[in-house]
Amino acid sequence: MGNVSIETIMTQEPKVKPESNQLAFGTVFTDHMFTMDYTEGRGWHDPMVVPYEPITIDPAAIVFHYGQTVFEGLKAYVTEEDEVLLFRPEENMKRLNRSNERLCMPHFDEELALEGLRKLIRIDKDWIPNVAGTSLYIRPFIIATQPYLGVAPSKTYRFMIILSPVGAYYKEGINPVKIAVESEFVRAVKGGTGSAKTAGNYAGAMKAQEVAEAKGYSQVLWLDGKEHKYIEEVGAMNVFFKLNGEVITPELNGSILEGITRKSVIELLQYWGIPVIERKISIEELYEAHRAGILEEAFGTGTAAVISPIGELSWLDNKITVNNGEIGTLSKKIYDTITGIQTGKFEDPFGWRMTVEY
Amino acid sequence: MGNVSIETIMTQEPKVKPESNQLAFGTVFTDHMFTMDYTEGRGWHDPMVVPYEPITIDPAAIVFHYGQTVFEGLKAYVTEEDEVLLFRPEENMKRLNRSNERLCMPHFDEELALEGLRKLIRIDKDWIPNVAGTSLYIRPFIIATQPYLGVAPSKTYRFMIILSPVGAYYKEGINPVKIAVESEFVRAVKGGTGSAKTAGNYAGAMKAQEVAEAKGYSQVLWLDGKEHKYIEEVGAMNVFFKLNGEVITPELNGSILEGITRKSVIELLQYWGIPVIERKISIEELYEAHRAGILEEAFGTGTAAVISPIGELSWLDNKITVNNGEIGTLSKKIYDTITGIQTGKFEDPFGWRMTVEY
Repeated sequence: MGNVSIETIMTQEPKVKPESNQLAFGTVFTDHMFTMDYTEGRGWHDPMVVPYEPITIDPAAIVFHYGQTVFEGLKAYVTEEDEVLLFRPEENMKRLNRSNERLCMPHFDEELALEGLRKLIRIDKDWIPNVAGTSLYIRPFIIATQPYLGVAPSKTYRFMIILSPVGAYYKEGINPVKIAVESEFVRAVKGGTGSAKTAGNYAGAMKAQEVAEAKGYSQVLWLDGKEHKYIEEVGAMNVFFKLNGEVITPELNGSILEGITRKSVIELLQYWGIPVIERKISIEELYEAHRAGILEEAFGTGTAAVISPIGELSWLDNKITVNNGEIGTLSKKIYDTITGIQTGKFEDPFGWRMTVEY
Repeated sequence: MGNVSIETIMTQEPKVKPESNQLAFGTVFTDHMFTMDYTEGRGWHDPMVVPYEPITIDPAAIVFHYGQTVFEGLKAYVTEEDEVLLFRPEENMKRLNRSNERLCMPHFDEELALEGLRKLIRIDKDWIPNVAGTSLYIRPFIIATQPYLGVAPSKTYRFMIILSPVGAYYKEGINPVKIAVESEFVRAVKGGTGSAKTAGNYAGAMKAQEVAEAKGYSQVLWLDGKEHKYIEEVGAMNVFFKLNGEVITPELNGSILEGITRKSVIELLQYWGIPVIERKISIEELYEAHRAGILEEAFGTGTAAVISPIGELSWLDNKITVNNGEIGTLSKKIYDTITGIQTGKFEDPFGWRMTVEY
């Protein structure tokens, strides 16, 4: 890929940038985007940075009908020294290729995609918000574009990266959320697509979320699809529990997403010498731990929130409170450390940061 | 809806129609399409028949990222008397609304959609091929169009109907196919989206199909996601088995698609007085029936093939042949009767046909 050049077409109509302190999530997009096309027999071609604009696509495109699409989410931060930092972007590109594999989609050159991302960020650097807690959300995704109604892998694809400046996830301090344990709907099952980052997993999860919200909960805790017994994820995040000084997260089993924040939390805990175990954990065990007084902390992990503490769980109308509904000491320390590394405020002993030179 | 008028914009560049005897499946589209938009607060609006052309859509549209989309498939036929017939289209519109419900998408007026479909077909009537076995494949679908990266139901949608003239599914007589019983991948599980006609189900199924094809099989037979024991579907079809004079099909259980051909086959068998039972059937029971010599016929049912006889099954390298690899008498009779009703050659005692007046 070393010789591939990424053509750039600059916008003639730059948009007005929103104020850093008035940003929401995922509603505003920057002036440019990265695109690259795939054609069977030719491979990936024409990597470009072009003005952000609607795409033109055949209504018969496979993505609309059979959902062949994969995506990633990561963030860029600007430091007080005006450095631009990415958090483990090579992990996202690796996972995107793993998702491709599951969805019968073509492998792409991760280095080239990273170079495209860096080029795009350099061009739209002034869109990175600089108020505490804000960041530039990055969405790489690939869609199947062939106009064909047969159920078969597409012969053409488009790889795109779009950028969205996003506001602080926690505007008024980190408030632990109320979570409903889901007893009817299932997010994924072994043999399905749960471990891939693909659209269908999210479409299927909306109904449970809608029902939970109507009952006053923020998210659902997903149990496994086979026995409705073991904990899998929370909302669109991985989940961790601190039981009697030991941190437990569900082991990767083919239906759980291999989260990059999840991986970072595990590595951080290991670095600190805090016991962290990946294993099956049932909802019964969790409730039993609460009864025994050893359920100390619970939190979700994901790119958007980084750490999302769980303050209350409700399972079949049986409610339990975690750490008096307050964020736990360890949860807070993990949050502060990871966001500190991401934003350049802390040392980065793991080499997690990538600086975007410009 | 009685007062809703469907605006029409005719194409200025009609395409060259393919020869009826040279059609494939789902690769060629007619001159026009039906579109209708949904905006939260306003509901569905602007139903139109417009020239078939690429659509313009934001790269952040929810359909690309979170797969909020549903679809249907049905066919139109032209009779020797030049009548245009649809097969149970109201069932497709009902199911599309059921799929909408599962995917948190807005209900639409089924009568209005049928009126839009009829109007579209009238305009593109000359695209309906008239060689035996050919038909006009109809694809209604709805996509989430809001540009938003939060995981939440879209506030805007587009309903479209596109038409594709398709060739005979069986060009050289009905050849029973070889089927691999899938032991690793899972199509759906109770609590998921298996009973809805939504993109993610099909994206997830491609990998198993790819593996099966590489081994020389046409399709996979899906087992349930919980125990990998009970038969669910075959490829993207429902499945039936004739055991000792009795026809058995897996009961609807939340993970099986409620097929309209499936329903029609059940109703037809009941009309004929042939025992037909919807119940759980395990792959072990099927193999046991074969050993006992009572597995008489096996076939898939779906809109594209109508009836697809199964000639061979392979489960964990254990192969069995059904009816000497030939189409069974009952399978053939069902195929002839349903296609006879669909194409106007047979009487329609069930009221399954809808004539499109023009």
